[in-house]
Amino acid sequence: MEHLSHLQLDIPDSPLPRIIIVGGGFAGIQLAKGLKNKKYQVVMFDRNNYHTFQPLLYQVATAGLEPDSIAGALRPLFKKQSDFYFRMARVTGIDVKEKTVKTLVGEIDYDYLVLANGSKTNYFGNQNLMDKTFPLKQIPQALDLRSHMLQNFEQSVMVKDEYEKDALTNFVVVGGGPTGVEVSGALGELKKHVLPNDYPELDFEIMKLHLVDAGPRLLAAMSEKSGEKALKYLEKFDVDVKLNTLVQDYDGQKATLSDGTVIPARTVIWAAGVTGNLVEGIPENLIEKGRVRVDEFNRVPEVDGLYAIGDVAIMKTEQLPNGDPMVAQVALQQGKLLAKNFVNQLKSKALVAFSYNDKGSLATIGRNKAVADLPKFHFGGLFAWFVWMFIHLISIIGFRNRLVVFSNWVWNYLTYDRGTRLIIRTFVKDKKARTKQT
Amino acid sequence: MEHLSHLQLDIPDSPLPRIIIVGGGFAGIQLAKGLKNKKYQVVMFDRNNYHTFQPLLYQVATAGLEPDSIAGALRPLFKKQSDFYFRMARVTGIDVKEKTVKTLVGEIDYDYLVLANGSKTNYFGNQNLMDKTFPLKQIPQALDLRSHMLQNFEQSVMVKDEYEKDALTNFVVVGGGPTGVEVSGALGELKKHVLPNDYPELDFEIMKLHLVDAGPRLLAAMSEKSGEKALKYLEKFDVDVKLNTLVQDYDGQKATLSDGTVIPARTVIWAAGVTGNLVEGIPENLIEKGRVRVDEFNRVPEVDGLYAIGDVAIMKTEQLPNGDPMVAQVALQQGKLLAKNFVNQLKSKALVAFSYNDKGSLATIGRNKAVADLPKFHFGGLFAWFVWMFIHLISIIGFRNRLVVFSNWVWNYLTYDRGTRLIIRTFVKDKKARTKQT
Repeated sequence: MEHLSHLQLDIPDSPLPRIIIVGGGFAGIQLAKGLKNKKYQVVMFDRNNYHTFQPLLYQVATAGLEPDSIAGALRPLFKKQSDFYFRMARVTGIDVKEKTVKTLVGEIDYDYLVLANGSKTNYFGNQNLMDKTFPLKQIPQALDLRSHMLQNFEQSVMVKDEYEKDALTNFVVVGGGPTGVEVSGALGELKKHVLPNDYPELDFEIMKLHLVDAGPRLLAAMSEKSGEKALKYLEKFDVDVKLNTLVQDYDGQKATLSDGTVIPARTVIWAAGVTGNLVEGIPENLIEKGRVRVDEFNRVPEVDGLYAIGDVAIMKTEQLPNGDPMVAQVALQQGKLLAKNFVNQLKSKALVAFSYNDKGSLATIGRNKAVADLPKFHFGGLFAWFVWMFIHLISIIGFRNRLVVFSNWVWNYLTYDRGTRLIIRTFVKDKKARTKQT
Repeated sequence: MEHLSHLQLDIPDSPLPRIIIVGGGFAGIQLAKGLKNKKYQVVMFDRNNYHTFQPLLYQVATAGLEPDSIAGALRPLFKKQSDFYFRMARVTGIDVKEKTVKTLVGEIDYDYLVLANGSKTNYFGNQNLMDKTFPLKQIPQALDLRSHMLQNFEQSVMVKDEYEKDALTNFVVVGGGPTGVEVSGALGELKKHVLPNDYPELDFEIMKLHLVDAGPRLLAAMSEKSGEKALKYLEKFDVDVKLNTLVQDYDGQKATLSDGTVIPARTVIWAAGVTGNLVEGIPENLIEKGRVRVDEFNRVPEVDGLYAIGDVAIMKTEQLPNGDPMVAQVALQQGKLLAKNFVNQLKSKALVAFSYNDKGSLATIGRNKAVADLPKFHFGGLFAWFVWMFIHLISIIGFRNRLVVFSNWVWNYLTYDRGTRLIIRTFVKDKKARTKQT
């Protein structure tokens, strides 16, 4: 969409107050659904026509699932929702005084504006890491990583130089949170069960997996026990876990760590942090740690009609003194509650303050193993793995997606096969030419 | 793969004679499988690491299937095949005197060379058509078309100009062969059953479907009855079929037909012809209609050790005075037979001449309708549609693919839904920047 002057927003005027939602992720979808036929006009913007179930993105990257399994078109979710408009358009900025939203296809006024545009990968200002590592936040990025990885293996059977063969088959995963741990486990599985069948000429001992984290343990947001178990499971997959270590630089060929180690690796996966996906026009004093400050009703303080929900918002309450965690559960709950509060407001009822209902967290490590922290207890192993599968299956939006994911998992489990190891996107060295943040 | 000098082919020397197969399509796969552990060293080249089931490519383009349904990785097909080497590398030329194959990663000698690199889209020298229309021969092309089409609908609800809205929602399909007929039917189904749910703001009367063919009837390679039935079925889907008509030019905005009609359309699908996918170095006098001449043993005349099978070969025999048709059945049968003849040759047995076993042809037109020409009789309608589904399901390589395709079809049929209408590849206006013939 390069020339957009021929487009216009053209949202019909409505006697109802207009709520604009920026972003069709977990938070935005819940909010819009909760507002169905509730005497508001609802306009949703997203740069994609689909929502992504991010917790399973790593399985797309590691050839376990196709994109249609973990993504769904947005429009069908709002079928027959009256006075609802979806527009696939990038929001470029907001003007909180004029109460307008600026997009690539024009401006539009709002009565209420809800920022629900989630988070983006945080490179902490390191341009090399930004240019040369693979993030894992969006479907095109996951497909890029998949093609890159498989293409490297095709090259590895043709490469002359031993050092280069090493680099082609090595992987460095940066960040020991759920994404980093899960992608490392999936790579371990590929190494152990899938790739050796495809490349009998290759000695898979040379494929080295490294997981690097700056902190003293894995899964910092989960219980200490879960972190320890994850470490144990990963080591069984021959993943070399380096804690208290930073990746200081990466030139596309080798990664330099803070302990002096230099790892030849053509693939560095960056899962070391996210930050709010902010738009232009949010007053500076309301931004904290890259997120927008909100009160317990998800209202942005001091700004009339402005709200933020999900990852992009930071809410500090008695219950959450360090701010709410950037996880799907918070986004879902805030989206749902804000819809209710918009309705309460119309009926002049009292607003309900947000209170986080932590349902627990889970991370899976390859075949058969997972760790789980539920509110009352935590556990690991095979049972946690079943719980993980069950929770993720019921969390995916759409019965079709559930069916597809389930059949793929059963297939992959029974056959040790990955159906989707096709190199469809051409490997492009220059990351700028790749689909970054599109 | 831009810098390839660091790569080498590195195929081990073998006491066995070396057969090089260029292309892992229907013909090449059958040949390589037939040579399993048969006292030949087999080396296969393909620019992709997967084979494509082309008859269903149009369903990927029209959001009915994901790529993993109709494509499968090549390597697993040759698991445990001894002295077999697959290399993902583009073949740039051959030297039939020196008996070498040139690839982007180096040269390699052969004892026998089998060209099995299929066909490519034929634009008959028209650069505008080549630059601006959508071909439908490969998976990236199908994905490009899908994203383009869906992106146009997203734009159509925002466009100011009525003429442009028309162009965004109009489709011109060029070529009334099976691909052209099937893609037109699939577009008709999208118009009737799928898209109106997504875009309630749009009046789908403006979405016009045109199928243009230079000849006097549809499905020229099938029976006259089938051509007539296909026409009737397409007209029920509001497809405007123009016979005896050429697309003379297309500037990306409007298509100009030979009868003077000008159709505003942002999407022109080019399914009007294919030609052999020739490599450099084939003696000119052996090329006929863009294909390589072969005798009834698929040997290229006058050239020692050179063979061609499938679409890239043209074989004129008493049975096939105009040359063998460029269809999957011929490719499969020639690949299989050539493997047998290679074995016969080793055993000093007489070679078996090719004789085409025409099992009939089929084309489907949207939901519930198909036409079938079997050797003894032809029929259409719902039963033909079931036969079409059955034949295609059993023809897809791999049990997993069959399962995925089948579940998708059942789902799409029961729900009138298409699960995969995600815009994942960004719409790029300049086709050269798109994945053309990659």
